[in-house]
Amino acid sequence: MATEPIRLFVTGGTFDKEYDELTGRLYFKDTHVHEMLRLARCRVETRVRTLMMIDSLDMTDADRRAIVENCRSAAEQRLVITHGTDTMAETARALLAAGLGKTVVLTGAMVPYAFGSSDGLFNLGSAISFAQVLPPGVYVAMNGRVFAGDHVRKNRESGIFEEV
Amino acid sequence: MATEPIRLFVTGGTFDKEYDELTGRLYFKDTHVHEMLRLARCRVETRVRTLMMIDSLDMTDADRRAIVENCRSAAEQRLVITHGTDTMAETARALLAAGLGKTVVLTGAMVPYAFGSSDGLFNLGSAISFAQVLPPGVYVAMNGRVFAGDHVRKNRESGIFEEV
Amino acid sequence: MATEPIRLFVTGGTFDKEYDELTGRLYFKDTHVHEMLRLARCRVETRVRTLMMIDSLDMTDADRRAIVENCRSAAEQRLVITHGTDTMAETARALLAAGLGKTVVLTGAMVPYAFGSSDGLFNLGSAISFAQVLPPGVYVAMNGRVFAGDHVRKNRESGIFEEV
Amino acid sequence: MATEPIRLFVTGGTFDKEYDELTGRLYFKDTHVHEMLRLARCRVETRVRTLMMIDSLDMTDADRRAIVENCRSAAEQRLVITHGTDTMAETARALLAAGLGKTVVLTGAMVPYAFGSSDGLFNLGSAISFAQVLPPGVYVAMNGRVFAGDHVRKNRESGIFEEV
Repeated sequence: MATEPIRLFVTGGTFDKEYDELTGRLYFKDTHVHEMLRLARCRVETRVRTLMMIDSLDMTDADRRAIVENCRSAAEQRLVITHGTDTMAETARALLAAGLGKTVVLTGAMVPYAFGSSDGLFNLGSAISFAQVLPPGVYVAMNGRVFAGDHVRKNRESGIFEEV
Repeated sequence: MATEPIRLFVTGGTFDKEYDELTGRLYFKDTHVHEMLRLARCRVETRVRTLMMIDSLDMTDADRRAIVENCRSAAEQRLVITHGTDTMAETARALLAAGLGKTVVLTGAMVPYAFGSSDGLFNLGSAISFAQVLPPGVYVAMNGRVFAGDHVRKNRESGIFEEV
Repeated sequence: MATEPIRLFVTGGTFDKEYDELTGRLYFKDTHVHEMLRLARCRVETRVRTLMMIDSLDMTDADRRAIVENCRSAAEQRLVITHGTDTMAETARALLAAGLGKTVVLTGAMVPYAFGSSDGLFNLGSAISFAQVLPPGVYVAMNGRVFAGDHVRKNRESGIFEEV
Repeated sequence: MATEPIRLFVTGGTFDKEYDELTGRLYFKDTHVHEMLRLARCRVETRVRTLMMIDSLDMTDADRRAIVENCRSAAEQRLVITHGTDTMAETARALLAAGLGKTVVLTGAMVPYAFGSSDGLFNLGSAISFAQVLPPGVYVAMNGRVFAGDHVRKNRESGIFEEV
């Protein structure tokens, strides 16, 4: 099947956290998405742009407007956004409210990619796949499942995304 | 969105090759699919069954018939098959010829999962995602792309799957 | 050359930190030392015991006394202690002051072992090696070097252990 | 303690084998030693030179003479050699026969470093440590143990190095 190029916006989140050897804390440096796409030997044309590198708990309304506007003005009809899990559902609502008429898939990770045991590579493969075949709309793709953007929340106790 | 359980048949392939410390050769032991689904924190119900553990260059017509019959008799409508890349397209043709009326997605890896730099986890995420949303048919999901089972081949020089 | 069994005391430190998926923080669960020795296919008899699982910044005088007493009462003459890097030099001084007459090697890691890019496995190989051949005394083995316990400090700016 | 620079000669072996995606075979490309020393944050000055990149079963007498001559002419008194495990003991004998008057430690790996589950990083840490403190002689450092070069063999059935 023919493939269109996918726009991939990076916003940070657990996905991209790294370990700071000097302070012993997690922090953001550069995104790992390029390395992940290389490891995946990804053959879908993926145009990556980093919009921000933040913990999604620190994401403001202005940040969300910036994400929405970047999705609106992108030349591509199919987009993937890497995002912290804590407020992914909120950003999905903001994107839905904007009525973009595009296929937008949000994804993230429970464990940083820089850790050997991350779900990030699996989730990225999942998001890029859903983005190619789902009709226009806003979706959250996590741990193999896909949710409609207005019917998803992260269960804070279990850490699992679920339908609402 | 509601998710149906997915049947996952393991047949071996590069995906599951391991390094034998005594002989220095690659060989098959147990599948890594269970470990991969755990790492992925996969929330789609996935029913795994190992049908064979072979290099796909060694796959016979009888092996392909066994795969087809297992797909036919499975209770599930959506199936993923892990498979060596060399003859994945042939197995796709055999499945198509059987007219199963189910969604079957074949996937594999260019590098063994037991190697740190494998595309396997990405491909598994991709295959499980396509299997949930594509209509009945036979597909090959590799490196982010999905191909119709009767229009795909592996380019032996480049190692890349391409449309035919 | 004949090898004596080595006593390995675990006290925590960066070495053993893990990522908590629910809180996004680093924490301690079980030690990774057993898994590391298995991966290393270690053929030296190593008797592992966890004394505590703490950040070395939280280590009290009472904790250090417990470490000293465990080293003293151990049947083995050769010991390795995994320890956080921040106060490793202080524990070395406490062990020296106790005059144990044994070979004690402290080691740790700059990056948690659970991260793919840790120096932990290298350091563990180094510490177990120095412990077999150095005369009685207290040593710090980090990143290939070995320091006398009373002539070492961690440079907090660079994160590097150096002689004093 | 003061550290002298260590000369590190690379000869290939399991240590440095990689997976060829096109043929599905293991092969040699570049050594992983530089990456391993970086990961280890190694603070001992290590001067790396690749002498050959071969399976030690393919090592000829001429290859062994080249290794011996490189050890003899090196400016350093302390050397580490990475080597395939199958004929490591033979090369140790050749080095002993040369009477170099230097400390030479041979090491290798049971599993390629490029595989996630390799003992290579542990063995490298061990070899670099033994090389710093052992008196002139030829040694084999594998899996935490160190053997005199004239009293070691690899048990082909178990894959384990043992004293003879």
